[in-house]
Amino acid sequence: MDGILIVMSGFSGAGKGTLLHRLLDDYEDFAFSVSMTTRAPREGEVDGRDYFFVDKEKFEETIRNGGLYEHAQYCGNYYGTPKAYVDEQLKKGKSVILDIEVQGAMQIKEKFPDTLMVFVTPPSIAVLRKRLEGRGTETAEVINKRIDRAKEEVNWMDKYEYIIINDDLDTAVKEMHDIILAQRYQTKRLGTFIDEIKTELKNI
Amino acid sequence: MDGILIVMSGFSGAGKGTLLHRLLDDYEDFAFSVSMTTRAPREGEVDGRDYFFVDKEKFEETIRNGGLYEHAQYCGNYYGTPKAYVDEQLKKGKSVILDIEVQGAMQIKEKFPDTLMVFVTPPSIAVLRKRLEGRGTETAEVINKRIDRAKEEVNWMDKYEYIIINDDLDTAVKEMHDIILAQRYQTKRLGTFIDEIKTELKNI
Repeated sequence: MDGILIVMSGFSGAGKGTLLHRLLDDYEDFAFSVSMTTRAPREGEVDGRDYFFVDKEKFEETIRNGGLYEHAQYCGNYYGTPKAYVDEQLKKGKSVILDIEVQGAMQIKEKFPDTLMVFVTPPSIAVLRKRLEGRGTETAEVINKRIDRAKEEVNWMDKYEYIIINDDLDTAVKEMHDIILAQRYQTKRLGTFIDEIKTELKNI
Repeated sequence: MDGILIVMSGFSGAGKGTLLHRLLDDYEDFAFSVSMTTRAPREGEVDGRDYFFVDKEKFEETIRNGGLYEHAQYCGNYYGTPKAYVDEQLKKGKSVILDIEVQGAMQIKEKFPDTLMVFVTPPSIAVLRKRLEGRGTETAEVINKRIDRAKEEVNWMDKYEYIIINDDLDTAVKEMHDIILAQRYQTKRLGTFIDEIKTELKNI
């Protein structure tokens, strides 16, 4: 069976990144789709692991060549999902996780209606604010910008099939894994099996 | 949170009964909805545990009084789901499993669109036939009747959200449990949480 395409979106500060890394560390059958971006690398970020860092010209060329499954602009930078890696991993039977914001997520859902759509959220906005403040690295202005962004993103929450309320990390990792496991038994992914049973019954 | 309503249907001989009993034995948070029927008890069946055994008059009276969530006729007998027990268990937070055939299942889905619909099947019809023959209790005529019935039921398979291919019992029990766990994180069951987040964001 081919792997499953999984989109994870969520409020900034929901702990999506940590959740994702734990999932990839704890379970073998996943691959993380590395996005392409024109934004500058942050401290500690590695090209090809966290992102493919490219300039605007290279990004726009990739768009023109049809090399991306989705792309969006966010805070003045491009972000996109390169096709080749996703295709390769799915064919190997791995489930591929895309960590993308709502605009890109909707593009993926439209192209691949069977995509598993998961939204990660803190238990409340009060907790979100506390977490962002607790990092100590964000200015009040940046925090307010992220809360403003959450005000837009919340309207897309019900376009996702599942919501992970990330209160405790271990629980959230397990929940995410339960959700992914359950996908394998979905009728819409078992079309071939149903056809085989139908054929067998017809020939009796 | 209220419990979830779960409908399990499947081909006769798919091992649905055994699967169901293992699920109830292994996990605490489920209740089994005991159906009402006009058919005679089989060897070893207990009234109130396996079925509520009633006569035709009593069954039809219960229909008239609106006491059933669904009912259907199957091989000349009535089968139905009494409302009171289901309501009571759901309110306690238990998930209630209904073991019903396709006609009744569709009535439940129409009344309660959020019902989790699971279809249990053997890995092939060849295996189904082997299992039915292996019981040693069924005549060739009865076995052929069940295969004929499967020919009708197969057309309803894609009305169910999930399919359990019951090859190995332990695996099937675990799969069923994975599916039920994942339901808790479905967006459609988290309307209250989403509303709370929206209200919090509006008041900032």
